[in-house]
Parts: sequence; structure tokens; C-alpha cells
Amino acid sequence: MKIYDWHIAPNPRRLHIYLAEKGITIPLVEVGGEDQKLKPSYVAKYPHAMVPMLELDDGTCIGEAMAICRYLEELHPDPPLMGVDAKDKAIVEMWEKRANEEGMLAASELFRNTSPTFADRGLPGSAEPIPQLPALVVRSKARMARFYQKFDEQLALNEFVAGHRYTIADITTLCAIDFGKWTDLDIPQECKNLRRWYKAVSARPSATV
Amino acid sequence: MKIYDWHIAPNPRRLHIYLAEKGITIPLVEVGGEDQKLKPSYVAKYPHAMVPMLELDDGTCIGEAMAICRYLEELHPDPPLMGVDAKDKAIVEMWEKRANEEGMLAASELFRNTSPTFADRGLPGSAEPIPQLPALVVRSKARMARFYQKFDEQLALNEFVAGHRYTIADITTLCAIDFGKWTDLDIPQECKNLRRWYKAVSARPSATV
Repeated sequence: MKIYDWHIAPNPRRLHIYLAEKGITIPLVEVGGEDQKLKPSYVAKYPHAMVPMLELDDGTCIGEAMAICRYLEELHPDPPLMGVDAKDKAIVEMWEKRANEEGMLAASELFRNTSPTFADRGLPGSAEPIPQLPALVVRSKARMARFYQKFDEQLALNEFVAGHRYTIADITTLCAIDFGKWTDLDIPQECKNLRRWYKAVSARPSATV
Repeated sequence: MKIYDWHIAPNPRRLHIYLAEKGITIPLVEVGGEDQKLKPSYVAKYPHAMVPMLELDDGTCIGEAMAICRYLEELHPDPPLMGVDAKDKAIVEMWEKRANEEGMLAASELFRNTSPTFADRGLPGSAEPIPQLPALVVRSKARMARFYQKFDEQLALNEFVAGHRYTIADITTLCAIDFGKWTDLDIPQECKNLRRWYKAVSARPSATV
């Protein structure tokens, strides 16, 4: 089993933190090139052209960070990072999904539509050029503002994003916030609950892998 | 337990199909208004302002269609719609996620940025007006073209989206394709595998609930 990785990228980071929290080690294959693009040999092997990707010993390629975590959670249930019973699993999945669609995807939209390095790469995983849309900048900043606000409210009532236990919902939320910093966004000062939580989860050893 | 529903909307449809495939009946509360907006009483109760939402008897509100399915899958494991072992669960989740991010979200982007009814609602779940961005039309159509192509290739090798068994990945893919029809998109003629699959899954009783 091995993981195809672009170590600096936000989606692979979700998996790195997950692995560190679990205490799992899997060999990594770096596929990010010096030109800030995925290496052509990787894209030829895996046309979805995204990272991370877990290749099993039978050759099966599992993409999408959360699908990889789902696989590993079945093999290594402790400590549980995806919920412990029906209700808890649903709450974790709900908040992870919000962190992804309202945080990660918004931060990605802003980055990909502003970074000079990503000119013509306005969306991930496309072989065709996707021009940047400057019109998206205002909207994606508004999305991020809503994301900070929503998660601040949730963390006013909960130690962690999905309740009293650290889960993958915290991992995706942390990666979304740090991805926002790539375009100079940050948690607003008034979001005191989110700032308290951010400080705590950033201090875990897993946050620096 | 009850489900807050906007029966015509694409995301609630994912849950309706899931329930029909499982043979589960849960009372529905319609919260779509005649003005094509969520009823204010629902938004006041549930500020995330999205559907579907499952309310448990203890008052817990579970949003996001796939999180609700996860809850129900734990309670009603047969027939399995989210995979049967570690590898299968991961493959289902991978394809469901692709169907959502590359299909549902692209179809939603196109619809919300073109429909006159959704002027100022360019994104879901926002209390603030989000202006439509005409610049997104070309991009979202390109996303849908890639989505049709990718799933056609997958279905050249597989009876269903995630392999030899009908799963939630088929449900999300079907809902994405039918959502695309809201803006007059359809499966290209040359995507023969996707068209074969579409005909088969659309003929299941669950597709018409």
C-alpha cells in the first residue's frame, strides 16, 4: 500500500493529519513537480489527476481524502475519528461535509482564481485549461466569511467541531482555515470560539506533519 | 423522527431514492414555499437553511443528504447502499464524492447562476444576497461535460458507478444528471455507457418517488 502525495497541498494534508492522529505509517510517493503541477507520469497513471491517492497492493486506486480515511478507519478503528455510533457518525459526516464544501472548496476557489501560478487552472483535475474568473473573488471571500462565522457558532457550544471528541471534521476545518491563509485570509478577531479551537488543534503534534 | 423536505429539489431527491431503495418510510415535512424559497419558519428553526434535514426524536438535527444516509445505513444495513467491506466502502465513497463535487455542484452552479428565480441566490444556504455570476456559465458547462465523460468511462467497465452493485454513488450520479436537465443539459449522445446506465437506473421504482 502506498500514498501518492503532493505534500504541500491542502487535500493531502487532511490525510497526513489523519494518519498522524491514528499513528499509521504508509509509504509516500511525491508527485508534485517543481513546476507546481502534478508530474505527467502520475497524471498518465491516474487520469483523475488529483491527490492524495491510495494505491492498494492489488492495484486498486482510491482517490478523495475522505474515501481513503474511510478505508483506513475500517482497518484501524482506534482512536475513532469518524464517529462511534449511528448518530455520532452522522454528526461527524455532516460537519466534515460542511467544512469541505463551505470551507475547503471556498478557499480553493479563491486561491485558484487569484494565484498567478494557477493561471488556466481555475478548477482541479482538468486536462483542459480553465481560465481564472476574477468575478469569483468577492463571492469566495463571502463564502469564507460565512464559514468562519458558522463554525465559530458551533464551537461556542462544543469543544470540537462535531462535539466533545476530536474527529475528521476538525481535520478538514483546520485544513480549510490554513488554506485560507494562502490568500491572506484569517479567522476574524471576533470569532473567539473558533480562535480558541484553532489554537488547540494547531498545537497537536498531528498539525505539523 | 421526521425529514424536512423540499420535494422537488435535487438534494432531497438523493434521500428519497435512498429511502425507496431501502424500503424505509419516514414522515416528511414540506418546507419549500410557493415563492420558491425555504419557508421562513424552517430557516428560523434551522439556520443552515438547506434541505434535506432529519430531526431525531431527541431534537438532534442532521443535515446533508449523505450524513442522513449514513445514519440510516447504520440502522438499516440491508440492502447495503454504502459498501460492504473496507475497500468497497471506500470505492463507493470516492465515486459518490465525485458525483457530488463534479456533477451535483456543477449542475447547481449552472442552475443558480442562470435561473431568474434564483437571482441573488447564487449559492445555497446564505441569508445574504449572492449575485449570480454569468461568467460561471461557461465554466459550469465545461465541468458537466467532464463529468459526463468521466462517468461514461467508468461505466464502460462497470455495471454500476461503484462496481457491480447499485449504491449511493448511483443515486447521486442520477440526481446530478437530472439536475443538469433543469438547464437543458443532457448526457451527450457519444456517452453510450452512461446512457445505458441512465436508462437502467431511471427504470427502477425508486427513481420516480
